[in-house]
Amino acid sequence: MPELTADSSTSVRIAVVGAGRIGAVHARTIRDHPRAALVLIADPDAAAAARLADTLGADSTDDADAALTSDAIDAVVVASPTPLHVPHTLTAVGAGSSVLMEKPVALEVAAVDACIEALGDRADQVMVGFNRRFDPSVAEVRARVRAGDIGTVEQVTIISRDPAPPPPGYLQVSGGIFKDMTIHDFDMARHLLGDVVSVHAFGQHLDQEVDDLYDAATLTLTSSTGAVAVIVNSRHSVAGYDQRIEVFGSAGTLEVGNQRSTSVRLHDAGGTEQAGPFLPFFLERYQRAYAAELDAFVEAVRTGTPQSPSIADGREALVLAEAAAESARTGTTITLNQEVAS
Amino acid sequence: MPELTADSSTSVRIAVVGAGRIGAVHARTIRDHPRAALVLIADPDAAAAARLADTLGADSTDDADAALTSDAIDAVVVASPTPLHVPHTLTAVGAGSSVLMEKPVALEVAAVDACIEALGDRADQVMVGFNRRFDPSVAEVRARVRAGDIGTVEQVTIISRDPAPPPPGYLQVSGGIFKDMTIHDFDMARHLLGDVVSVHAFGQHLDQEVDDLYDAATLTLTSSTGAVAVIVNSRHSVAGYDQRIEVFGSAGTLEVGNQRSTSVRLHDAGGTEQAGPFLPFFLERYQRAYAAELDAFVEAVRTGTPQSPSIADGREALVLAEAAAESARTGTTITLNQEVAS
Amino acid sequence: MPELTADSSTSVRIAVVGAGRIGAVHARTIRDHPRAALVLIADPDAAAAARLADTLGADSTDDADAALTSDAIDAVVVASPTPLHVPHTLTAVGAGSSVLMEKPVALEVAAVDACIEALGDRADQVMVGFNRRFDPSVAEVRARVRAGDIGTVEQVTIISRDPAPPPPGYLQVSGGIFKDMTIHDFDMARHLLGDVVSVHAFGQHLDQEVDDLYDAATLTLTSSTGAVAVIVNSRHSVAGYDQRIEVFGSAGTLEVGNQRSTSVRLHDAGGTEQAGPFLPFFLERYQRAYAAELDAFVEAVRTGTPQSPSIADGREALVLAEAAAESARTGTTITLNQEVAS
Amino acid sequence: MPELTADSSTSVRIAVVGAGRIGAVHARTIRDHPRAALVLIADPDAAAAARLADTLGADSTDDADAALTSDAIDAVVVASPTPLHVPHTLTAVGAGSSVLMEKPVALEVAAVDACIEALGDRADQVMVGFNRRFDPSVAEVRARVRAGDIGTVEQVTIISRDPAPPPPGYLQVSGGIFKDMTIHDFDMARHLLGDVVSVHAFGQHLDQEVDDLYDAATLTLTSSTGAVAVIVNSRHSVAGYDQRIEVFGSAGTLEVGNQRSTSVRLHDAGGTEQAGPFLPFFLERYQRAYAAELDAFVEAVRTGTPQSPSIADGREALVLAEAAAESARTGTTITLNQEVAS
Repeated sequence: MPELTADSSTSVRIAVVGAGRIGAVHARTIRDHPRAALVLIADPDAAAAARLADTLGADSTDDADAALTSDAIDAVVVASPTPLHVPHTLTAVGAGSSVLMEKPVALEVAAVDACIEALGDRADQVMVGFNRRFDPSVAEVRARVRAGDIGTVEQVTIISRDPAPPPPGYLQVSGGIFKDMTIHDFDMARHLLGDVVSVHAFGQHLDQEVDDLYDAATLTLTSSTGAVAVIVNSRHSVAGYDQRIEVFGSAGTLEVGNQRSTSVRLHDAGGTEQAGPFLPFFLERYQRAYAAELDAFVEAVRTGTPQSPSIADGREALVLAEAAAESARTGTTITLNQEVAS
Repeated sequence: MPELTADSSTSVRIAVVGAGRIGAVHARTIRDHPRAALVLIADPDAAAAARLADTLGADSTDDADAALTSDAIDAVVVASPTPLHVPHTLTAVGAGSSVLMEKPVALEVAAVDACIEALGDRADQVMVGFNRRFDPSVAEVRARVRAGDIGTVEQVTIISRDPAPPPPGYLQVSGGIFKDMTIHDFDMARHLLGDVVSVHAFGQHLDQEVDDLYDAATLTLTSSTGAVAVIVNSRHSVAGYDQRIEVFGSAGTLEVGNQRSTSVRLHDAGGTEQAGPFLPFFLERYQRAYAAELDAFVEAVRTGTPQSPSIADGREALVLAEAAAESARTGTTITLNQEVAS
Repeated sequence: MPELTADSSTSVRIAVVGAGRIGAVHARTIRDHPRAALVLIADPDAAAAARLADTLGADSTDDADAALTSDAIDAVVVASPTPLHVPHTLTAVGAGSSVLMEKPVALEVAAVDACIEALGDRADQVMVGFNRRFDPSVAEVRARVRAGDIGTVEQVTIISRDPAPPPPGYLQVSGGIFKDMTIHDFDMARHLLGDVVSVHAFGQHLDQEVDDLYDAATLTLTSSTGAVAVIVNSRHSVAGYDQRIEVFGSAGTLEVGNQRSTSVRLHDAGGTEQAGPFLPFFLERYQRAYAAELDAFVEAVRTGTPQSPSIADGREALVLAEAAAESARTGTTITLNQEVAS
Repeated sequence: MPELTADSSTSVRIAVVGAGRIGAVHARTIRDHPRAALVLIADPDAAAAARLADTLGADSTDDADAALTSDAIDAVVVASPTPLHVPHTLTAVGAGSSVLMEKPVALEVAAVDACIEALGDRADQVMVGFNRRFDPSVAEVRARVRAGDIGTVEQVTIISRDPAPPPPGYLQVSGGIFKDMTIHDFDMARHLLGDVVSVHAFGQHLDQEVDDLYDAATLTLTSSTGAVAVIVNSRHSVAGYDQRIEVFGSAGTLEVGNQRSTSVRLHDAGGTEQAGPFLPFFLERYQRAYAAELDAFVEAVRTGTPQSPSIADGREALVLAEAAAESARTGTTITLNQEVAS
């Protein structure tokens, strides 16, 4: 990777590894970014890589390693399947590139620890894709909390419900609801509350009675400051993608409400204030978050500052997911040994 | 009427003339007022008067004049048919009582003028029942406007739609939409804007093609300050009683929204934020306004201060209604000679 | 107590024991009820009893037992201090009256059990004052849940925050946050969810570091159907009395939002949609609930049907409060032996 | 211009004439459109053209005529100053290109008529940039109105207020409030209501007492169906860009509310439901409208279908603006001779 300086007009040259749904989101976002250049899309499915690359004016390859080690790139977005997140990241960082890695880092904390050790002092070059931190509404709430607008944070309520369950195949490899869904909310709780010191989780079996496959959950997290975060998750929600956050503080409450694609309301004999559906799913709800995430990533690459959220943040969310699974299984509250500061 | 002083613990003794729908509202409001006593209900339909009186623990009579001139009362609520408003008011005031007169004062400005002349310096004892001024939301807006919260008032928008048309019989004697419906909005415009100097009205025939019977209307009123009020009326509204006001000023906008009986919202596959119906009609929407109106009336009686809104306010609203009818008929803007200050 | 039949036009004659804040609410509500008569107010503070009685046109006494056993009454509202709830109720029921008892029944489950045993088959004559069940918004949600509007209930979220902490003296005798505050939410969870089979509670010390005096709490309750209720409580809330409920079901979500005294909104340079304060506290927020509660009580007296919520409901809420205290102390999830059906 | 067919994968090649604020919006929108190619930007200020072109990867020129007649383009966006709209459009159409012309077509109806005559049967190739028709909320309302969701349209209310007045220099050449601001609302009224048969306008002088320079206005338009549109305009609005529409029909009301950049709300001691500012001005509020407008333009170019809104629509809006000016000056209602169907 060549030297990039803050005042450089040179774009950050980026390869995307993985031409699936989320890879396509990142590729498009890179294409539209004024200081990023989409150079290359890699996917073992060469046709898929080529199709996406053609649309966006980039090259394509079915050789991920070639992409990850190319001289023509400064950074990589790792959007491959979860088991490849760590190897792809290590290869790219080893070749001198910065990495925006999709979450989760891995499905086991031990694997994350191994990755962190292998990265050594290059861990700063890796951003973990907790995109919701970059949602403009979340960012506004976080900034106002930091500015003291609501005093001391005391209680955070996070409601996160998917419109419909993922396909059964996904459920077999996802690591379960705490690792594939609540993982975002764990990060959000830490983002708004600080370090978490205990986790209590209750998992619900609603649609299916398969052991160990919860499809809904409620969690209580406590922080080192004495504040609490409540998380309510469900894999289905007839009314649509339900993404709400409330931060209650000693001087007020800030809330992030659901969002819609238009501001139309209907009043008729059937009811008043009838609004349309929520933005359908994460691609739409967090479209602006993906753009802001990329922007933060690109700026950190350009200025040589540490990436955030870091791989340590990725680890902490996974620790909470494992604690939640244990709590749900045993009915106990799990106390955490805090080893990593965010 | 005996002397009543502000520090008196004696209740104001009140007779209600007219046992119809609005008379019953007033009677119940008087019964519940801590410093008013419901003494007597008069109606030519003796049975109706007795039924209402029995429910509320009052006496009844079919002799309105006896009620109006009784020594046992301090004040009268005139809720008789419109043609009797003036004669009943004059009789009551002549007997020394204060009067809360339902609107409109009369259907013709000339009749109001005759009444004002007959009242002479006792006009101060008469309140005209523009109940909406006393609605807590309207009162809050007016107070905040007066306090300068939104700077100089520039544009007022009043939307007022009934849920369904009144019975045809009523339409024959009501004086038309400007006198039976817009009359409230004329008063509201004056209340929020000050004196009106011109009126433009457009009447719509939507449900019926009877000449001179508009069932919807839009009006533009201009005030002596250069501010404007827009009024939108309809005799039907499928979504329910639609009562909204916006006051736009140089430093902000204050709005009064529609109200519902509960704060329940439904989110489902058919839509989000689905709320229940608006409060169904004026009895429900303005229930608290009637109570506050009576309270203001009672306090003015107790303290001997002039009643407001005054009969002059009643006259002004009627002047605007007549101007509106002329404007709608001719297509011209009617300029008013301002003779009476509110 | 004389026989009352459903078609009787006779009012239910009621005594109120306790002339404090909540006794006054009940007394006024009785005065305004068309089929109830406020006969007597009893309080050891004879002057307080007399003042309230005078205002409302009733008699007063400082002899509670005389009131509870009077021949002139059909029913009693027990609004005395908590330790007197059971003895006053037993005396009144023993004298043949029905009782609307303020919550909590007692501070210990054992005391409630003794009361239930003493009442025997007269327990049906006792209503416990879980007034929030009668809130029109709650009642609407419950009715729509029952009607199947949102399918199967899966997750209930109850947020209940007081505007400011009660006086320190009250905190010493109230039994703690779970018995004086969450008690309402336990009943609400049972009302919307059915029987509760486990409780997990986390108590927060925010404003004061006194052992065992939580001033905020978050709870997770699970029901026999597999549904979950999350409760979030705080003794303070700068934005005002925060009373919200969401019922998430397989076919939709019903929510009860906060309420305000007017529908005014301000838009200015400082922000848009700025609304006024929530209704300040329970007297205002649940004013209509108290009226509906009395109405249900009076109708059950008149028709001889069992009162609901019953003393068994009062017991269950207290069982949950005790379980919550144990959970918060030990960090474990408490499993309940369900003995009483609601 | 070469042949383009609907199934062609070839992009529509577009030049933008005018590198000012609105030209830049169009240029960026073209760059991001999957079936459009931004070829050339022309502006007499060669440096401005070059700057914009460099950012977006296009060529630039200071020779508008060269751009308008280039063989390398299929279509032109005319974003030059108003007096050049017609000549630039005629040149481009003469060279075989389609044109998206910024509004207004011209400042005088006579000039539009001359343009229409000169275009002859090529008028179909010209779209007039009434971008608000393409706003997703407006489009949804229009589609639902067409689908009969609210029955027969009876009353339309359009509130349109700019955050702050344009610079004085602009006011001297803009043609006044009816031509530079209400022009959008005239088109919207026609879009939602159909042909307009009469106009009444009242102009306000609020901030400045310059003759003939209204800075606020309220208008009443009537349609051939008997429906009415009320328009309320102001050149300033402290709360921000205020863009609302209500369509009241016999079976319900559809409204388009204001929009914000986030869904954050604050509740504190100063108020509840406090939302952030409205989207600041037309570039933000109508960003998606510009994209949808371009998409419609490109699709019509590709499929050879007539452009809409047409130059006839542009003419009609200008006719209404001239009628409004006359009405405001004379105080009369202006009846229109309908010559052109939309």
